[in-house]
Amino acid sequence: MLQSTRTIGIVGLGLIGGCMALDLKQLGYVVYGVARRPATVMAALEQGVVTQASCDLSLMAEADVVVVCTPMATIVPTVGQLADLLPASVIVTDVGSVKGEIVAAATSLWPNFVGGHPMAGKAESGLSAAEAGLFRQRPYVVTPIETTQSAAVEQVVAIATQLGSQVYRSTPTAHDQAVAAISHLPVMVSASLLHTCLGEADVQVKTLAQKLASSGFCDTSRVGGGNPELGTMMAQYNRPALLQVLHQYRHQLDTLIQMIDAQQWDVLEQTLSIAQAERPKYL
Amino acid sequence: MLQSTRTIGIVGLGLIGGCMALDLKQLGYVVYGVARRPATVMAALEQGVVTQASCDLSLMAEADVVVVCTPMATIVPTVGQLADLLPASVIVTDVGSVKGEIVAAATSLWPNFVGGHPMAGKAESGLSAAEAGLFRQRPYVVTPIETTQSAAVEQVVAIATQLGSQVYRSTPTAHDQAVAAISHLPVMVSASLLHTCLGEADVQVKTLAQKLASSGFCDTSRVGGGNPELGTMMAQYNRPALLQVLHQYRHQLDTLIQMIDAQQWDVLEQTLSIAQAERPKYL
Repeated sequence: MLQSTRTIGIVGLGLIGGCMALDLKQLGYVVYGVARRPATVMAALEQGVVTQASCDLSLMAEADVVVVCTPMATIVPTVGQLADLLPASVIVTDVGSVKGEIVAAATSLWPNFVGGHPMAGKAESGLSAAEAGLFRQRPYVVTPIETTQSAAVEQVVAIATQLGSQVYRSTPTAHDQAVAAISHLPVMVSASLLHTCLGEADVQVKTLAQKLASSGFCDTSRVGGGNPELGTMMAQYNRPALLQVLHQYRHQLDTLIQMIDAQQWDVLEQTLSIAQAERPKYL
Repeated sequence: MLQSTRTIGIVGLGLIGGCMALDLKQLGYVVYGVARRPATVMAALEQGVVTQASCDLSLMAEADVVVVCTPMATIVPTVGQLADLLPASVIVTDVGSVKGEIVAAATSLWPNFVGGHPMAGKAESGLSAAEAGLFRQRPYVVTPIETTQSAAVEQVVAIATQLGSQVYRSTPTAHDQAVAAISHLPVMVSASLLHTCLGEADVQVKTLAQKLASSGFCDTSRVGGGNPELGTMMAQYNRPALLQVLHQYRHQLDTLIQMIDAQQWDVLEQTLSIAQAERPKYL
């Protein structure tokens, strides 16, 4: 437990908020939870993931640090509501998967805001899927800006470290560009692959392709066939960074197409060799 | 065992040839194997995967059916050499992963040729990696053309069935288009993803991306980081079909980029929903 932080508030008791509450309570913190629905408040108390819970945001006035774990669209409005309730000393952080706009807007509402992004999850969602240790050995990016007080940053870093995460510090912009490349771009690349196969005009070819598709196609198409709401939200919130990396991808694709068109087999093999050699850096 | 086929010849005792020899011998066939290197001939005899083995192609004159399991570049030249040695009744088939050019060229050299493509493999290569049952429950595409005698087709289909494969019949063209879409396109799509990330000019973003990359990136980049010789060979032998599907892919990608650019979130979500709903047809 941190000396300066005894009580942590969690707004939003879904999978991430629930897991975080569970771990923090086990670490010895007093954990206050706020959820929109009374049933979630009840469940959180019954499951013992929080010390105290309410539908009323004013419970957060008791906390030293507040973690906003709501869906992306609700993060900034929630910070706005908290700003009317909290003493100025309270650190507010969030868990949104895109940081640029959120950190700028939230900081303007609450100067003591520190952006955060724990990169953990599972297929199931909601409080009922909460489990201990979800953030252990997972990346947790903390994204201060120039005006963020370093003491607040250190507090959030310390909490993420206690959760067992690998903590990285980054500007919101660099974070958004990085996740655009390794998380949001793959979804669009993979969905385009599925739609190319689905768009095959020759029914015989299309049907045969479905029968012959194997582990390579399965893996390459996995994230493109994932949750459509999530994929759309990524694009919506990280639009500029995603568009930029999509254009870079398109350029790389064109380069490969040109190699194949021009039958530059040595160049193609060299390009694929670099991909093979460098891929382990991303694993 | 088929009544009309007692002896099967295998040219090329690598992984595919070795596995096929092993299974056919267990099925009761007399299996003759030919390899380029004396060490492979010795090993095949020691491992007991063949009844008899030699470096000399004339051993194949004793076979009822000859399966050419050499690398792609050597298939047609091998059929040419066999044409000088075999009685006209012998059926020659191959295991090449692209069929159009090979079937046309091989049939002109040996009218009793039937194209085949068993879609099985493993990470290791060579005779030492050979194992029983590699083709079991795997697709095996047989690709006759108009002039192919149906009795020869049935013989090859019967052998593939005995190996436990799921047998599909297709024209060489439809086969090549189908594998371009579900096998060769994913390699280029996936390699382009890796090169987009590798080409990131901002070192901070590139390094952060490498640290944050997770299972989604791992899966989507897997086949792009695979064997470069194999990827190049796919492009080389299936160039027209691959280029065609690459252009279709590029069009799909542009469509997605335009949706994101124009902030058509409902259309994007609908597109991702179709991808999610239709993907199971390829699994």
